[in-house]
Amino acid sequence: MGDFTAALSHSAAIAVQALETLLPKSRDAENRLFEAMRYAALGGGKRLRPFLVLSSASLFGVQEDCAARVAAAVECVHCYSLAHDDLPCMDDDDLRRGKPSTHRQFDEATAILAGDALLSLAFEILSGSDTHEDPHIRCELVRGLAMASGPQGMVGGQMLDLESENQTLSVGAVTRLQQMKTGALISFACEAGAILGKASPPHRQAIRGFAHDFGLAFQIADDLLDIEGNAETIGKSAGKDQAAGKSTLVSLLGSERARMQAKILSDQAVKHLDLFDEKADLLRAAAHYAIERRA
Amino acid sequence: MGDFTAALSHSAAIAVQALETLLPKSRDAENRLFEAMRYAALGGGKRLRPFLVLSSASLFGVQEDCAARVAAAVECVHCYSLAHDDLPCMDDDDLRRGKPSTHRQFDEATAILAGDALLSLAFEILSGSDTHEDPHIRCELVRGLAMASGPQGMVGGQMLDLESENQTLSVGAVTRLQQMKTGALISFACEAGAILGKASPPHRQAIRGFAHDFGLAFQIADDLLDIEGNAETIGKSAGKDQAAGKSTLVSLLGSERARMQAKILSDQAVKHLDLFDEKADLLRAAAHYAIERRA
Repeated sequence: MGDFTAALSHSAAIAVQALETLLPKSRDAENRLFEAMRYAALGGGKRLRPFLVLSSASLFGVQEDCAARVAAAVECVHCYSLAHDDLPCMDDDDLRRGKPSTHRQFDEATAILAGDALLSLAFEILSGSDTHEDPHIRCELVRGLAMASGPQGMVGGQMLDLESENQTLSVGAVTRLQQMKTGALISFACEAGAILGKASPPHRQAIRGFAHDFGLAFQIADDLLDIEGNAETIGKSAGKDQAAGKSTLVSLLGSERARMQAKILSDQAVKHLDLFDEKADLLRAAAHYAIERRA
Repeated sequence: MGDFTAALSHSAAIAVQALETLLPKSRDAENRLFEAMRYAALGGGKRLRPFLVLSSASLFGVQEDCAARVAAAVECVHCYSLAHDDLPCMDDDDLRRGKPSTHRQFDEATAILAGDALLSLAFEILSGSDTHEDPHIRCELVRGLAMASGPQGMVGGQMLDLESENQTLSVGAVTRLQQMKTGALISFACEAGAILGKASPPHRQAIRGFAHDFGLAFQIADDLLDIEGNAETIGKSAGKDQAAGKSTLVSLLGSERARMQAKILSDQAVKHLDLFDEKADLLRAAAHYAIERRA
């Protein structure tokens, strides 16, 4: 676990460095927008998605500065989604990463615009020639991120999540919701390394399988933390799902069975990596971390 | 003017057809999101930006089905911006194109998500191989749209616009605000045809010059309508800028001088098209229309 947490910190530092460079700064009147973008994107967090991009890229010998740009783009999308999801008309969360959420630190309009701007910026980054010399690759990255973040991915999942309040969903419906809401972007983060590295179809398939099971395991662990954690350790309000009457695999299966399910998924995720050598050890460690983390 | 309004209707029909095909439909639980996206994007409007894409593309012999996809992508971005700008925490507008704005027809959360989803969809469309066979071109389109819509373009302009309430801006500051808020996307719409058609640098420069002056003239006409129009003819609430104490070129210069300024800009816009033959007549007509329209 020590190697893994060191690797997670290392990739977080790389992603933050890339974001620092790529996020706009200005002394012009729109500075408030840039400040809000930086607040939303640079305010801490585990940086799991950048870790996944950088780790999968390293499996395929991708240059780190290219992977860092993709990691930054994925993190822009993740952070935009948090700024929007925290809004009063959505999940109404005042706290994010132990600090005021973006609309509490600024205001609602600024939080919406900062999110919008981060989403556009992500595509500006991916389409830039510094991301990869081959425009086919850049287009594939743009298309992959657009689909993961759009109506059939993350945004569609958030819509389902809002509609699920005070409804009991089936296990299948909850699984689908979570694959869209968090799984799609996690999958893209994993696949991005394979796209950048022009991985062979079997390797790409393996990464996709890993991402799928890893994403679901990670989400169950998140739901367990929402029940069992407290705001201090998880850096955001706890007990939100329960209060909103939202179905999760934890509420449907109970904590014990959900924990078992997460363990099975985490083991399956590792199994998908069998065709890789020890270069994949960090992703294997990530699968264990996903279900054992306390924050 | 007859030819021009016929051409505007024709390009609107092409754009709507493309949007009909490209906007997702589903009977799944996220259908509400797709309905809101369709409501925001298919609810009418002049479709000026699609017209600009299609007209500039026709100057350079671009296939219409490729140009139609780009027109649809640009319109997705324009319609997302309207859905977000109409929100209570932004411009707080209940009426859009003579109908309830998206958050009034659905709710605030759905309007935010529909906007987010339209923005992602725009990049999904541009990066798809049906948009252009050459991935260099697709990447250039993605990058151009991202920059036009992002913090240094449309979103930055909206931030400036919100901050300008009850402030008197200089003519220069207002011009910069409007170039960002509406000019950047209009410029991209014009340039997109040149990008698709791999136009020569002088042709591209000419289109860029046209777009710049056309965009400013169009905005002054919009501000005049806001003062002089009524909700019935313009399809949205009138007198909003004045009520919000916003500086516009009309409030700073007076209606008469602003109208003269728009005329000068419109003439300049036409002048930029001198190196094109009669194929550019529709763009020339658009420049006249921009300042003479009554809605």
